Amino acid sequence: MLRIITQQADVKAELQRICDRTHDEQVVHKEATVREVLQAVKRQGDKAVLHYTAEFDNQTLKLEELRVTGSELDTAYQQVSQELLQAIQLAARQIEAFHRQRVPKSWVNFGEDDVVLGKRYTPVDRAGIYVPGGRAAYPSTVLMNAIPAKVAGVPRVVMVTPPGAGKVISPAVLVAAQETGVQEIYRVGGAQAIAALAYGTETIPKVNIITGPGNIYVTLAKKLVYGTVGIDMLAGPSEVLIIADEFANPVHVAADMLAQAEHDPMAAAILLTTDPALAKNVQVAVERQLVDHPRRIDTEKAIAHYGLIVLVESLEAAAELSNEFAPEHLELEVKDPWAILPQIRHAGAIFLGYSTPEAVGDYLAGPNHTLPTSGAARYTSALSVETFLKHSSIIQYSPTALQKVAGAIDSLATAEGLPSHTDSVRRRIQQDE
Amino acid sequence: MLRIITQQADVKAELQRICDRTHDEQVVHKEATVREVLQAVKRQGDKAVLHYTAEFDNQTLKLEELRVTGSELDTAYQQVSQELLQAIQLAARQIEAFHRQRVPKSWVNFGEDDVVLGKRYTPVDRAGIYVPGGRAAYPSTVLMNAIPAKVAGVPRVVMVTPPGAGKVISPAVLVAAQETGVQEIYRVGGAQAIAALAYGTETIPKVNIITGPGNIYVTLAKKLVYGTVGIDMLAGPSEVLIIADEFANPVHVAADMLAQAEHDPMAAAILLTTDPALAKNVQVAVERQLVDHPRRIDTEKAIAHYGLIVLVESLEAAAELSNEFAPEHLELEVKDPWAILPQIRHAGAIFLGYSTPEAVGDYLAGPNHTLPTSGAARYTSALSVETFLKHSSIIQYSPTALQKVAGAIDSLATAEGLPSHTDSVRRRIQQDE
Repeated sequence: MLRIITQQADVKAELQRICDRTHDEQVVHKEATVREVLQAVKRQGDKAVLHYTAEFDNQTLKLEELRVTGSELDTAYQQVSQELLQAIQLAARQIEAFHRQRVPKSWVNFGEDDVVLGKRYTPVDRAGIYVPGGRAAYPSTVLMNAIPAKVAGVPRVVMVTPPGAGKVISPAVLVAAQETGVQEIYRVGGAQAIAALAYGTETIPKVNIITGPGNIYVTLAKKLVYGTVGIDMLAGPSEVLIIADEFANPVHVAADMLAQAEHDPMAAAILLTTDPALAKNVQVAVERQLVDHPRRIDTEKAIAHYGLIVLVESLEAAAELSNEFAPEHLELEVKDPWAILPQIRHAGAIFLGYSTPEAVGDYLAGPNHTLPTSGAARYTSALSVETFLKHSSIIQYSPTALQKVAGAIDSLATAEGLPSHTDSVRRRIQQDE
Repeated sequence: MLRIITQQADVKAELQRICDRTHDEQVVHKEATVREVLQAVKRQGDKAVLHYTAEFDNQTLKLEELRVTGSELDTAYQQVSQELLQAIQLAARQIEAFHRQRVPKSWVNFGEDDVVLGKRYTPVDRAGIYVPGGRAAYPSTVLMNAIPAKVAGVPRVVMVTPPGAGKVISPAVLVAAQETGVQEIYRVGGAQAIAALAYGTETIPKVNIITGPGNIYVTLAKKLVYGTVGIDMLAGPSEVLIIADEFANPVHVAADMLAQAEHDPMAAAILLTTDPALAKNVQVAVERQLVDHPRRIDTEKAIAHYGLIVLVESLEAAAELSNEFAPEHLELEVKDPWAILPQIRHAGAIFLGYSTPEAVGDYLAGPNHTLPTSGAARYTSALSVETFLKHSSIIQYSPTALQKVAGAIDSLATAEGLPSHTDSVRRRIQQDE
């Protein structure tokens, strides 16, 4: 049963508990396993990759089966329905259109004394995309990771995804990859996939950045290889926080909460509402919609442990609680969502109004669905084209410009005890050398 | 003696060795210490902070001495020369002017059927800046970290820096802080400072992002707390790569290499040149400039271990080697640096021409001097205003717009086995609920 609480003091502790749900003690033990996998793949390459794929994914691959073949890629198109193909194509178009907007561009400014300053943007050489697999298939994850890399202009995008029973990769995933131009796909998941992308093996290339969500092993591996390669973020279980007023439809709100909870027994679904009747009706609707839910057990677990309805005094109070939680997804199911928006400081994605369920953003509205979880929205953002770009500062000084700042550089370098810094300037402006 | 090499095969191995110079085995042992410090500060707060400050920095502070007082801040202005104050102010103005350019702004687009999509940028609530201290003082680090935070609009910027002998913080550092509006400064460094900022103590506030360079303990601590808070990057020892042609002045090139080497015995200084005479002359000039260098021993160590001159066949070959190394600082001391620039794919900052020593960028040209090291320029960039900003995706759909995409969402959600995703859309477009 989805709990309803009112006490302000309890609320903060409860929200904190839910926000911290990934930081459990088990992580320490799992980290040892992940370190072992990383070391083995670093030292033994493909051999270790195949070993752990057999051990963790129960799929005994031959070396030549590691990479998905051209004929598998071709066949995938025959295995998806026309409706699904069109849905993937629609989503791809809308995601690409959104990501093409406001991409940072290189620039230089020309200042006094021929000083030139600027920023030059370039893509990474190689990106690795992790797509979860096994029993489930996530074509949307492929689109949300590959499209920003493509828009950034990354020359080589590599995908890894764990094989399911019979060594199979979901045709929907293979189609989504091809629709975004990704042809280089390896049948490997877990920490061993992250290790292969970070260090390279005989078969799998070392990349510069690894993106995409995964389970706790994948996330731990990403944290450990960070520094050797870049990563997008450390993704935890998904979460939604809904702020709703008395005009929200409880059946819709309940469906949105379950759409979050059905992802994972660790998923969180929180409703903050000013209306006691809505709270009660959502509670009832959740129970009702759970009755014949195909994923009832896992979904019920998430609702029981990390589901919560909070009765708040005002929408302002709701916004402030939401800022403390910094949700991955925030739905503003209120009459005037734009009036509340300025009060929202931290949220991965914000869904405004009664007819914007999170699912529209999960799949095809355009903005990225790879979003910061567990409070990370306090300091970071959705995966974006910028994730695959970096910039170099551009600096050009003329002799005249250098002359004018030589004294100031001397003062600063002397204060910092770095004499050759001064020297490198002074020798250039004294023309006697 | 600065080595000169020519063999292409050796070059890649040598550059790799220099690039990897931080990834030593000692790190594993240091990590255990850092974990202990993090845990202690997390559990015991200020008490642990004071304990480790006594143990590692040899400064026994009383609790009330942890925060720098108003009178110390005032006094600092009397302790710096007028020249230094003006240099700090000039640098601050130029850094701020550069960082104010092209700051991302919130936007929304209005599409068909009243769909609204956009991005809303907001600063982090609290930023923590680490400034190295002890025997040295780095007012430039203060400016380079505090100014982007200020331009981003961060409401609360906190600084930490380890106390030197007599519990003193450098007046230049205190002045630089005040010139950028930072008044909240704590006398703590090392892993204990990072822990305090990540978890908060009774005295030091928990922040959302920690930026700034430090020694290996600070860097390890930043990596471990990443996820609890954001970090700018994992900074290693500094490095410069210089591409020079026959018209470059060997005395200037030598000074630039020493300006890098004098930072740290682990610093790297690499010259790639097409001209054997320049190579020889730089080698001689480095020896000469080292003779009475105030930091001779450490600087010589850096030059001996991580200094290198490589004779290359062409500037194109130099650019390609530079891309493999992905240097923090790249100087193009060639006749037409803009002709080579398009070939440069990975570099933290690029200094163009004969009269742009790195020192001008280190202090006051404007671009940030906090840059990716050890090859991290392959995937990341200078500290910037964006480091302190994050964005929320904005999505609003109308009932009509939702109706049009309902079928596609159904296909995708069904492929992914997420029935409540479909449900959350279908219940909204069936008006019988």
